[in-house]
Amino acid sequence: MPARGDHDAKRRDVSEAVWRVLGERGFGGLTLRAVAAELGASTGLVSHYFPSKRALMAHALEVAEERTANRALRTPPGPGLAGLRSALLDVLPLTEEMAGMSRAWVSSWDAALADPGLSAGQAARYLRWCEVLRGHLEAARELGELPADTDPEDLATVAAAFTHGLVVQALFDPKRLPPTRQTALLDSFLDGLARKR
Amino acid sequence: MPARGDHDAKRRDVSEAVWRVLGERGFGGLTLRAVAAELGASTGLVSHYFPSKRALMAHALEVAEERTANRALRTPPGPGLAGLRSALLDVLPLTEEMAGMSRAWVSSWDAALADPGLSAGQAARYLRWCEVLRGHLEAARELGELPADTDPEDLATVAAAFTHGLVVQALFDPKRLPPTRQTALLDSFLDGLARKR
Repeated sequence: MPARGDHDAKRRDVSEAVWRVLGERGFGGLTLRAVAAELGASTGLVSHYFPSKRALMAHALEVAEERTANRALRTPPGPGLAGLRSALLDVLPLTEEMAGMSRAWVSSWDAALADPGLSAGQAARYLRWCEVLRGHLEAARELGELPADTDPEDLATVAAAFTHGLVVQALFDPKRLPPTRQTALLDSFLDGLARKR
Repeated sequence: MPARGDHDAKRRDVSEAVWRVLGERGFGGLTLRAVAAELGASTGLVSHYFPSKRALMAHALEVAEERTANRALRTPPGPGLAGLRSALLDVLPLTEEMAGMSRAWVSSWDAALADPGLSAGQAARYLRWCEVLRGHLEAARELGELPADTDPEDLATVAAAFTHGLVVQALFDPKRLPPTRQTALLDSFLDGLARKR
């Protein structure tokens, strides 16, 4: 066994390689062999860290989670709809880095739908995200930016759905949906929320 | 080689098995071995029809396309927003059958993102779908159901994004998003489009 420091450094290298393979091939192409080739190491070394395909997949999700949590977020210019806009922009593939992250998540849905544990994890992630969005929508209603009979819980689900759907379309057709167009579409969506009945 | 009629019948059986494997395991679990086990046949027989993993994947996409094209569609109760509502309801996982179809499509995105040919096919599919939605939105604007300055192309992309995002959330969390709630959220989304500025 290598010393602790070496072990941690090596694990970080392996994590980097996992992330690069994910970016190029998605979860479907994430194999011990592909990670080993990316590292220029033996599959034996990789399997020392991840004894099975499922362990590798679980680690890849952890890496995605960690990178998502640690990414640079916008400072919301204000509460209410401004905060909501900022939170939704933070999810769109407007930069290379965010496109890589989005791609990893969209690509994880195949495996997640086939695995009850991963599926429950994804459902919990949606719920947490909708809670955050709901907070912004409640603030917007308080501020009078939204009609008084707005249902923040419903609108949070609608906003999450719209944003994830836009992520998917933009990943498949970045020419039709460059960052400026994604932002304009988000603004047109938010504009719709704010209209009077 | 079996006679032509036998060959076609057998191919249909294989297609059915491919569809069932897709429903249970997604594209990530779609292997010659899994299809053979589902059929109770040898992998040799399956590889007679599909010589590679990619050929099997391409066939699975054809099956999904065919089933999607041939599914029973609602008769739109009218033009404009009623037609749009009907077209979007036809995409939501409101029945077992539609949930299976949605699942196959969402699960295909992993492989499609990793393969330029499949990715272009998916982008083209989005474009065709947005064109259909745009037709409904143009009719709605003509009918005065939408503000005169509505951009049907933008709104078609927004509507497609919202609907696909709702499909994904509903697949992961069917308890939170049963058919009645999906329909209510779609109506609240459409309601937002129709509001005055």
